Amino acid sequence: MAADKKVEAITSMEEDFAQWYTDIVKKAELMDYSSVKGCMIFKPAGYALWENMQQELDRRFKETGVQNVYMPMFIPESLLEKEKDHVEGFAPEVAWVTQGGLQPLQEKMCVRPTSETLFCDFYKNDIQSYRDLPKVYNQWCSVVRWEKETRPFLRSREFLWQEGHTAHATAEEAEERTLQMLDVYADFCEEFLAIPVIKGKKTDKEKFAGAQATYTIEALMHDGKALQSGTSHNFGDGFAKAFGIQYTDKDNKLKYVYQTSWGATTRLIGAVIMVHGDDNGLVLPPKLAPVQVMIVPIMQKKEGVLDKAFELKEALLKFRVKVDDTDKSPGFKFAEQEMRGIPVRVEIGPKDIQANQAVIVRRDTGEKIIVSLNEIVAKITELLQTIQTDMFERAKERRDSSISTAVNYEEFQDAVKNRQGFIKAMWCGNQACEDKIKEDTTATSRCMPFEQEQLSEVCVCCGKAAKHMVYWGKAY
Amino acid sequence: MAADKKVEAITSMEEDFAQWYTDIVKKAELMDYSSVKGCMIFKPAGYALWENMQQELDRRFKETGVQNVYMPMFIPESLLEKEKDHVEGFAPEVAWVTQGGLQPLQEKMCVRPTSETLFCDFYKNDIQSYRDLPKVYNQWCSVVRWEKETRPFLRSREFLWQEGHTAHATAEEAEERTLQMLDVYADFCEEFLAIPVIKGKKTDKEKFAGAQATYTIEALMHDGKALQSGTSHNFGDGFAKAFGIQYTDKDNKLKYVYQTSWGATTRLIGAVIMVHGDDNGLVLPPKLAPVQVMIVPIMQKKEGVLDKAFELKEALLKFRVKVDDTDKSPGFKFAEQEMRGIPVRVEIGPKDIQANQAVIVRRDTGEKIIVSLNEIVAKITELLQTIQTDMFERAKERRDSSISTAVNYEEFQDAVKNRQGFIKAMWCGNQACEDKIKEDTTATSRCMPFEQEQLSEVCVCCGKAAKHMVYWGKAY
Repeated sequence: MAADKKVEAITSMEEDFAQWYTDIVKKAELMDYSSVKGCMIFKPAGYALWENMQQELDRRFKETGVQNVYMPMFIPESLLEKEKDHVEGFAPEVAWVTQGGLQPLQEKMCVRPTSETLFCDFYKNDIQSYRDLPKVYNQWCSVVRWEKETRPFLRSREFLWQEGHTAHATAEEAEERTLQMLDVYADFCEEFLAIPVIKGKKTDKEKFAGAQATYTIEALMHDGKALQSGTSHNFGDGFAKAFGIQYTDKDNKLKYVYQTSWGATTRLIGAVIMVHGDDNGLVLPPKLAPVQVMIVPIMQKKEGVLDKAFELKEALLKFRVKVDDTDKSPGFKFAEQEMRGIPVRVEIGPKDIQANQAVIVRRDTGEKIIVSLNEIVAKITELLQTIQTDMFERAKERRDSSISTAVNYEEFQDAVKNRQGFIKAMWCGNQACEDKIKEDTTATSRCMPFEQEQLSEVCVCCGKAAKHMVYWGKAY
Repeated sequence: MAADKKVEAITSMEEDFAQWYTDIVKKAELMDYSSVKGCMIFKPAGYALWENMQQELDRRFKETGVQNVYMPMFIPESLLEKEKDHVEGFAPEVAWVTQGGLQPLQEKMCVRPTSETLFCDFYKNDIQSYRDLPKVYNQWCSVVRWEKETRPFLRSREFLWQEGHTAHATAEEAEERTLQMLDVYADFCEEFLAIPVIKGKKTDKEKFAGAQATYTIEALMHDGKALQSGTSHNFGDGFAKAFGIQYTDKDNKLKYVYQTSWGATTRLIGAVIMVHGDDNGLVLPPKLAPVQVMIVPIMQKKEGVLDKAFELKEALLKFRVKVDDTDKSPGFKFAEQEMRGIPVRVEIGPKDIQANQAVIVRRDTGEKIIVSLNEIVAKITELLQTIQTDMFERAKERRDSSISTAVNYEEFQDAVKNRQGFIKAMWCGNQACEDKIKEDTTATSRCMPFEQEQLSEVCVCCGKAAKHMVYWGKAY
C-alpha cells in the first residue's frame, strides 16, 4: 500500500497564497473541516502546536502572578447587556441557547464570545476590600463568534484562546498590567514563535467593545497582510461602574475597581504558517515544534541500520525526537517531514554508519551538514538555536523590507496598490479619515506604534495637522 | 483589618454531611456559584486541583499512545440522532442553540453532552485503510448536561472533563483499549489521588447510552455513598454501523471499525473532598496538592524570623512551597492552611531558630514533629511519601470496613438501612430485580466487580439462580 501513497505537491505561494495556506493546513494534517459549518477540527499535529503554545504562555503568565480559573460558558442575555458598548459589539455575532433539556429557557443565554461580563458579575461579590485586590485571573477555553466567512485557524465560529481578566485598585496599576501582558505576548511571539511584532495602540475605531484603550501586537504575513496576534485592553472603571464592582479602600471609602483583559488565540497557528511556511510546507521554529528531530534511516532493511537509528534516538533524547521506521521510501519520508515542518532531519544509512557519521538537513534552509556521531548532540543543540534565531531574523528582515512610508494620499494609495506590507503614514486622529482610507484602499489602521516617528506635519488623508503615526495595512 | 477576619468553623461531617461538603468547597475557596443556574465557577484553588489532575492524567494517557485533538462544541441535531440508543440517552438533557448571530439556525444544534457523534462523523472520512488504525484520540473540554439538581463538582450543568475516543481494526483490540484506560484511571486514582477504587462492569441498565459494555471505577465517600469516578466504554461496531465508518483491510475487504470512549471529570475533585476531608477542612494528598508545604513564621515581626522563613523556603524549593507572611495571627494561618488541605506545615519562630530547628505538622494526622534544619529536606521528602501512602491506606481500610455482605433480601434491606457503604450480593442478571432493589432501597448496582466471589447460589432479590456478584450502594 505504501507505494500508492505519495506526497502531493502543494500550490505555490506565488501562484495562489490562499490556496497554498489551505493546502498546508490540510496536508500537514493540522486540521479538518467539520459538519458544523464554520467550526474546525484540530487534528493531533495542529492541537500539539496549541498545547506547546499554551504551556509556554501559561508559564509566562504565572511568572507574573496570574492564576487560572474557569467560568461558565453561558452568558444570560441580561448580563451581556449590562455594558452598552460591549453588547453592541458582540450581540450581533453570538450563538443563542434557547432551550435546556425539553423546556424553553426563561431567559436565553449566549455561548460566551468573551467573558468580561461573567468576570464582572463574579468580581462584584468576590471583591470587597482593598485586601482582595488585585485579582489577576485567566482562563483557557473556547469561545464562539458567529462569523460569516471563516478560514482555518484565522477566523472560525468557535476558537480556542485564553482570556485574562484583572481588577485593580488604581487606574495606574490597570494600565501597567495592560502593558505588561502586551509585553508577555510580544516576547512570546518573538522568542518562542520567531515572529517579529509591532507593539502599539489601536485607534478608537478598532478598539475592543467597551475598552478605554486596546493595545495590540501586529505581525506581517508572507503575503504582505497584517495579522493582529494578541490584544490587551484597559477598561478603566467602565465595566466596574456598569456592574457595580466596588471595594472599601484603606481610607474606608468605597471605590470602583479598574479592569483589564487580554487574549491570544489559536490564530497564532495561522501566523506561524504564514510567516515561516514555504512551498514545501510548514516550517516550525524549534522551540514550538512538537517533533524537533526526525531520524530517517536509509536502506533500513539492511542489517544494523534500524538498530543504529534507534540507538541514535536514545542519544538524542534531550530533544523531541522520532525515528520514521515506516515502510515508505526515504524520498517520501523527506517530503513528509518537510511538509510537517520538523526543524531537523537526520539521515543515517549503511555508508554513514561505516563512517561513524550522519547527514543533518535543516528544514528552514535545506542546508546539509555531515557530522560525526561523536559530535551530533552538540551539533544539533547548536543548530536548533541557530535555526530559531535565523528564522526570527529572516522574518524580521522580510517584515522590515515590507514597510513603506507615505507622506501624501497619492503615495499612500500607490503603496497599498503596488506594494505589500505595512504603510507608515501620519494621521489627524479623525475617524472620518480612517473610514475614507478603508473605503478607498481596503487598508485599515493596524496600530499607533509605541515607537512614533514624525514623517510629516499633516494627515496623509485630509492634510490637517497630524497627531499620530499609524501603521496601515490590509489585514486578516 | 486582619483582626476582624477569622476562620469560621465548618459544619461537622457527623452533623450534616451535605452541609459539611458545601462549607468546604466555599471556605477552601474551591468554587463559587454563578448567575448561570446550575453552572459553577472554578476559583484558583479549585482550578489548580484540576490542572494537576489534567497534567498527570495527560502524561499517563500519552504514555499509552494517546494523541490530543479538539472537536467543535456543537452537534447538529441530525448528527446526534444517528445512533438510536445514544440520542435517547442524551436528547432529554442537552442545551439547544437555535439562533446564530441575528438569524435563526436552519438546523438546531446542541452543546455537546459528549462527543461520540462528532468523532464518528470525523472518523468516517479520516479512516480509509487499516493503515489509518488505530486512532487513539482524546480531548480536554467542557460539556453540558441540563441537570435538574446540581451540586458543586459532583453534578453541574457544565463540567470539565476529558473524553477519549478510539477506533480499532478488531473487537479484541477495542476491548483491550477499554480495559487499558480503566486501568489508567484506577492507577491514577489510587496512586495520585490516594483513593481506592473497585473496578468492574456496569449492568446493562447502568451502561452508557449506545455502549456494548461500560466499565467503571467506583469509590466510596466518607458518608458511605458511592461515587462513579471514571468510565470506559466499548462500543463494538454499533456506532461504526450507524455512521458508516469502514476501512479497507489487508485482505482488501471493507470492514467496520470497533470503537471505545472513556472519560473522567471534575467530579474527581468532589471525590478528593469526600474521601479525605475532615472537620477542619480539605485534606489533600501530597502528589495532588498545589502547595505541599506552607511555612508559617512565628512572631514574624522579630528580627530575623521572616528572613529565616524565606531562607528555609529556598532550601525547600524541590517541593511546592510557600511562606505565609501575611499579617494574620499564627492561629489564623494554621486554621487557613488546614482548611485548604496543605499536607505539611512548617512553623518557625525565634526559639526554633536559636535551636536550629522547626516544627513540622502533618495535615492528615495533626502529628507534630520537631526536626533539625539540617535534616529538614530529607524529613519532608519522607513525610510527603508517608502521608500519601497513609492517606491511601486509611481510605482503603475505611472502604473495606464499609462493605457488607447480604445473602438474602432481609439482610440486604437491613444493610442499606442500617449500615453505610457497599453491599456485596448475588444477582440473577435480570433488570427487574435491579429495578425492585432500587425502588425498595434507593440502592443501585454500582458494578459487577472483576474480582467475583460466590456468596451464594441465588439472586438476593428473586431467589433464582445467581449469575454475578454485584456491588450495590447509594450513589452520588
